Amino acid sequence: MPATRLALACAALLACTCADAATPYRSAQQILDASPASAWRTLDPARTLYMELDAGRVIIELAPEFAPEHVANIRTLAHERFWDGLSIYRAQDNFVVQFGDPDGEEPGKAKSLGSARTHLPAEFHRPAAGLAFDRLPDSDGWAPEVGFVAGFPAARDPKKGTAWLAHCYGMLGAGRNNADDSSIGAELYVVIGQSPRQLDDNITVVGRVVQGMELLSTIRRGPPPMGFYEDPAQRTQIRAIRLASEVPETERTPLQVLRTDSQTFRDATEARRNRVDDFYKRPAGHIDLCNVPVPVRAPTKG
Amino acid sequence: MPATRLALACAALLACTCADAATPYRSAQQILDASPASAWRTLDPARTLYMELDAGRVIIELAPEFAPEHVANIRTLAHERFWDGLSIYRAQDNFVVQFGDPDGEEPGKAKSLGSARTHLPAEFHRPAAGLAFDRLPDSDGWAPEVGFVAGFPAARDPKKGTAWLAHCYGMLGAGRNNADDSSIGAELYVVIGQSPRQLDDNITVVGRVVQGMELLSTIRRGPPPMGFYEDPAQRTQIRAIRLASEVPETERTPLQVLRTDSQTFRDATEARRNRVDDFYKRPAGHIDLCNVPVPVRAPTKG
Repeated sequence: MPATRLALACAALLACTCADAATPYRSAQQILDASPASAWRTLDPARTLYMELDAGRVIIELAPEFAPEHVANIRTLAHERFWDGLSIYRAQDNFVVQFGDPDGEEPGKAKSLGSARTHLPAEFHRPAAGLAFDRLPDSDGWAPEVGFVAGFPAARDPKKGTAWLAHCYGMLGAGRNNADDSSIGAELYVVIGQSPRQLDDNITVVGRVVQGMELLSTIRRGPPPMGFYEDPAQRTQIRAIRLASEVPETERTPLQVLRTDSQTFRDATEARRNRVDDFYKRPAGHIDLCNVPVPVRAPTKG
Repeated sequence: MPATRLALACAALLACTCADAATPYRSAQQILDASPASAWRTLDPARTLYMELDAGRVIIELAPEFAPEHVANIRTLAHERFWDGLSIYRAQDNFVVQFGDPDGEEPGKAKSLGSARTHLPAEFHRPAAGLAFDRLPDSDGWAPEVGFVAGFPAARDPKKGTAWLAHCYGMLGAGRNNADDSSIGAELYVVIGQSPRQLDDNITVVGRVVQGMELLSTIRRGPPPMGFYEDPAQRTQIRAIRLASEVPETERTPLQVLRTDSQTFRDATEARRNRVDDFYKRPAGHIDLCNVPVPVRAPTKG
């Protein structure tokens, strides 16, 4: 019988030499495998959150470059154990999971915010000046320029001089009501589907899940259209959310992230833009911002 | 305490009147609610698959316009109950779930394909001529033109005169090996994450999940990088896959799909391109092909 397995993504790890090219094609994985140590950075525990679920640990990198006020508040909330015992109370398919206090808007039932601030400015975007912006060669219809800033998918408007984080898979945002300054970082959501880029520059984005997305993406969905569970028993309990720097070193998860300003990252992205292997018959010559993975790994020894 | 719930997607269903606009803004939902019956079509049972899982029914619309040979073979396989008792044996986060015969490549263990064909031509694209192509005003970097054909997200190349289906969330494709004609429709995958458009025109796409995506998207992921389960016990069993036309009428799920060539669909898409409500502060003026939902509903009575 014919071979019919779907061999996507690693169909052909063998390099193929193009007759008229100076150097043979290397796949993104081959480029990563040959990366120098300098292409990787260790996650900073002071800007890393651990979300502890029964199913395991979700690891989040915070983005104080873009949302300093929200990130400061999130640090306070984690330090004071605001989320411990709260829940993921919404899961909308192809959109977001959302967590925090499901009773947050009910006076008398809402959990105390402790010493966290109860009002923050909107941090939808920031000045582009001062940011090292590693631009993708490709553009899309959502923003004049897209690329990466310090490991995060981002967009930039040269005319306005602003930059903002993009709503790709795994991005963490601060839920709000209609007022632009109605978020404080206590209610958060993570993108679990096709990137809802219409939210870009409309909401404060505070970070990105770097490991453990499969623990969030597989959570049972709530009822349409919004995915809020009707039965509280269906919520996913949050054991704890902690700053990694406040967790004993022996309990931390050592993790390295590929530097998005490294040649390795640029080369791997280019290899994905134009795949030359036995599987792909028509290289795209393009990549969408939200299709570019930012690899993580356990630290290498030695 | 401040209101901090994330009120995305239905934040403001009230129409807001723009001072200098001739007609008030209507949200996509308002437009759908006011749609005429003629904007909807009933799913054709002869091109509808029911995938029966313990968790419920996944409903798939087939696309014979684009992959006639594969769809014919899939009809044969369903008729002869090929998939009954087989499994979803792969789940890769932010990519695909894949199902069929996990032993399909092992002589002696592979399930018989019955009277299905064991070789088919690749059906990556087809002539654009003869297709009603409802083009989106927006473009992306993956294709010269994008839009909808008979309910499916699609792309078109006017220079080459070809059209093909786009790998959006929920699309169903035929797994293959390296040879372009190595798929026969027995091993299938569904996109469960950010649209992997690099696969467009590189693989035969055969349909789209129109209901029940949450049953596939929440399936426990297999181990990286490819998501094939190591322990067969972790696979999700398939009770049956049937053509709706071969299921007794009393057991069918009546379903209507919004016609993508209707004014309602165009108006709803435009309302999503430029959201004017109390939540959005900066309308995008854009939508990505894979961000356009194709609504379904139970048939209205009367």
